[in-house]
Amino acid sequence: MHELRKDPILSRWVAVLKDSMPPTFYLEKNIEHVMYDAENNDCILCQGSEDKTPPEIFAIREIGTPPNASNWHTRVIPKINPVFQIEGDLGRKGNGMYDKMNSIGANEIIIESPSHNTPPEDMGISQMIKVITTYKNRLSELEKDPRLRYTLIYKDCGKTAGELFHHPHSQVIATPVIPKGIKGELDGAKAYFYYKERCIFCDILNEEIRTGERIIMETDHFIAFIPYAPRFPFEYWIMPKRHNCAFQDISEEEVKDLSLVLMTTMKKMRTLFKNPSYNYVLHTAPNRMPRKDHWHTLGEDFHWHMEITPYLVTKSGFEWDAEFYILTTSPEDAAKYIKEV
Amino acid sequence: MHELRKDPILSRWVAVLKDSMPPTFYLEKNIEHVMYDAENNDCILCQGSEDKTPPEIFAIREIGTPPNASNWHTRVIPKINPVFQIEGDLGRKGNGMYDKMNSIGANEIIIESPSHNTPPEDMGISQMIKVITTYKNRLSELEKDPRLRYTLIYKDCGKTAGELFHHPHSQVIATPVIPKGIKGELDGAKAYFYYKERCIFCDILNEEIRTGERIIMETDHFIAFIPYAPRFPFEYWIMPKRHNCAFQDISEEEVKDLSLVLMTTMKKMRTLFKNPSYNYVLHTAPNRMPRKDHWHTLGEDFHWHMEITPYLVTKSGFEWDAEFYILTTSPEDAAKYIKEV
Repeated sequence: MHELRKDPILSRWVAVLKDSMPPTFYLEKNIEHVMYDAENNDCILCQGSEDKTPPEIFAIREIGTPPNASNWHTRVIPKINPVFQIEGDLGRKGNGMYDKMNSIGANEIIIESPSHNTPPEDMGISQMIKVITTYKNRLSELEKDPRLRYTLIYKDCGKTAGELFHHPHSQVIATPVIPKGIKGELDGAKAYFYYKERCIFCDILNEEIRTGERIIMETDHFIAFIPYAPRFPFEYWIMPKRHNCAFQDISEEEVKDLSLVLMTTMKKMRTLFKNPSYNYVLHTAPNRMPRKDHWHTLGEDFHWHMEITPYLVTKSGFEWDAEFYILTTSPEDAAKYIKEV
Repeated sequence: MHELRKDPILSRWVAVLKDSMPPTFYLEKNIEHVMYDAENNDCILCQGSEDKTPPEIFAIREIGTPPNASNWHTRVIPKINPVFQIEGDLGRKGNGMYDKMNSIGANEIIIESPSHNTPPEDMGISQMIKVITTYKNRLSELEKDPRLRYTLIYKDCGKTAGELFHHPHSQVIATPVIPKGIKGELDGAKAYFYYKERCIFCDILNEEIRTGERIIMETDHFIAFIPYAPRFPFEYWIMPKRHNCAFQDISEEEVKDLSLVLMTTMKKMRTLFKNPSYNYVLHTAPNRMPRKDHWHTLGEDFHWHMEITPYLVTKSGFEWDAEFYILTTSPEDAAKYIKEV
C-alpha cells in the first residue's frame, strides 16, 4: 500500500510505500560498492603529480610552499575538457524561434585530499573543514564575475553517479543561466514566501524538529533529515538552523559543525549500504543575489542546504519522464535506519 | 566547443557539443543491446498463458473468442503489484505543514503482441495499428473516472530503461494528480499561448518544417524530429500536424500514419545503435480537459506528441540535480545520422 506525498517546495507528488523495505532489500540488489583501498600511481590528482595537471586556481597549502608544488591540503584545478569556458562574451542570439548563447562559465575540479585512498568520511575533521572552506572560496570568487548567474558545487562518487576520477574530488560548474533544477526550487520558495511571508526552508526546519521522525542528526547549527517527499529512498538533506540564503556567508563555527555533520552522516550511510555510489549537491542562492540590503526582502525566501543521494535503485521511464517517483522505503523508516547505525 | 540552447517549452538550458560525436562513439561505450531472439515458456504475457495473469481489462481479439481465452492481438491486464489502486476515495489530508492523499489510480500492462520475440518495430503495420488503438481505448476509458487527473502511457524497453517484462509491452499509469514532468510542459505551453496567442507546438512544427535540419521523417499527418534542445543525444519526438491536445481524438487515418512513422523511425534508431534500451512516452492533455467548447481557448495551448529516448549515456550528478544536460551529438547531426540509415 502506497500513500502520495507532495514536496512542498517543488509541488512534486511522489508515491511512498507504507510497508517499507528494510536496507537489506537494497543490498540484495545490484548496487555499486565504491572501494577506496588501492593506491594508484597513474592518478594525476595525487600529491606529487602536480606537474601533470593544469596550473592550480586555488589551494590550501602548507605555509611557504609555492603554487603547484607538493604539500597542499586541497587544490582547485580547471577541468581538462570543459563544457563551459571563462573566455569570451555571452553572445545571446535568436535562432529562428529558438534561443542560444555561448557556453561561458567555469568548470573546476576540487581535489579534496592529497591522498588517493581516503574516503571523504574518513579524512578527519580538520581536512573536511579545509574542503568546506575551499567550497566557500570558489563561491565567493566566482560570484564576482558579472556574466555568471549560478555556481553549483557537487560531488559524484562511483561510476553510477558519473564520477570522473576515483581520487576524492568535487566539481564546480558556474553557468551564465540558472540551471532548471535550481530554478524550480527558487521559484517554489518564492511562491511560498509570497503566500506566507515566511521562508519555506525555515518552516520545514521547524516542522522537522517538532516531529523529529525524519531527523538523522541534530547539532547546535544544523539538522540532517530525510525530506518528507524525496525522489529516492535514503536521500537526505543537511540544513543550517540560521536563515541564510548564501553558502559563502557561512560562519567559522558553522563550517566546523557542517564538517562534523557531513562526515558523521556519510559514515552512517556508507556503513549501512557498504559504501554505495552517491552524489551530493550544494544548493545556494544565485550569484549576486542581493542579501545585505535591509530595505528589501531579497534573500529572505531562500535558505542554502546540501542534498545527499545514494544510488540504490534504477529509475523507470515513468520516473524519468513524468518525474513521479516511487519510494520503496518511507522517509520515517529510512531516518530510523540511518540514525541507528 | 559547446553552445547553450534553451528548450522553448520548459525554459531549460542545455549545452550542445558543436564538434559532434558520431553514432560509433556510443557503440564503443557500454550501452545495453536488447535482444528478442528467444522464446520463453515461463513468460506470463505470451499467448497460451492467459490463466496466469489477472483477468483482462480490455483486449483486441479474434471475433467470437471469449475474454481471457487465446487468439488475441493486444491484451490489457492490471499490474500485479500496483502502486496505484482503483478502489477507495482520494483522502486528501494535511500532515503538519505537508500534504498527502491516497494512492488512487490505475496501473495497467498493455501486451503489444501474442508473440514473445517480435520487436515492436518488426511486428507489422496492422499489429502496430492495434497497439495504437489500444492506447486510444485506455485513454478514453480512464478519462471517465472523475478522480483521475492524468493518464500516462509509456514503454520501457531494456533493463537500463527499467523494463518489467521482456515480452513487448507498454504500461498505463493513471494518477489523481498531474505528474510534475507533465505539469512543467503544460505550464510552459500555457505561458507561451498567453504571450503569443499561438500553440507553441504548432510553432515548433512550422519552424522544424521550415528549416528541415532536425527532421527525420515527414508524412501527410506527422513529423518525426530531434528537438532543438533535448535532454539526450538522439532523443526524438513524433508530432501530429493537425492541432489536437488529446491523443484519444486521433483519427483513423492518423492512427495508420502514426503506426508507420513509429515503426520506421524505431527501426532506423534500432539499426543505428544495434537495438539500445529506450523508452517512449505519450504526452497528452490532462483527463477531462475541456476541448469541444468553441467559446473558450481551452485545449488550444497543448498538442499531443510522443517522446522517444534511447539510453546511450550515463547521467552525472550535475545533470541529475541541476537538470542541465550536456549533449555530445548535436540535434542536427543526430537527425542526419538517423535519416541516412
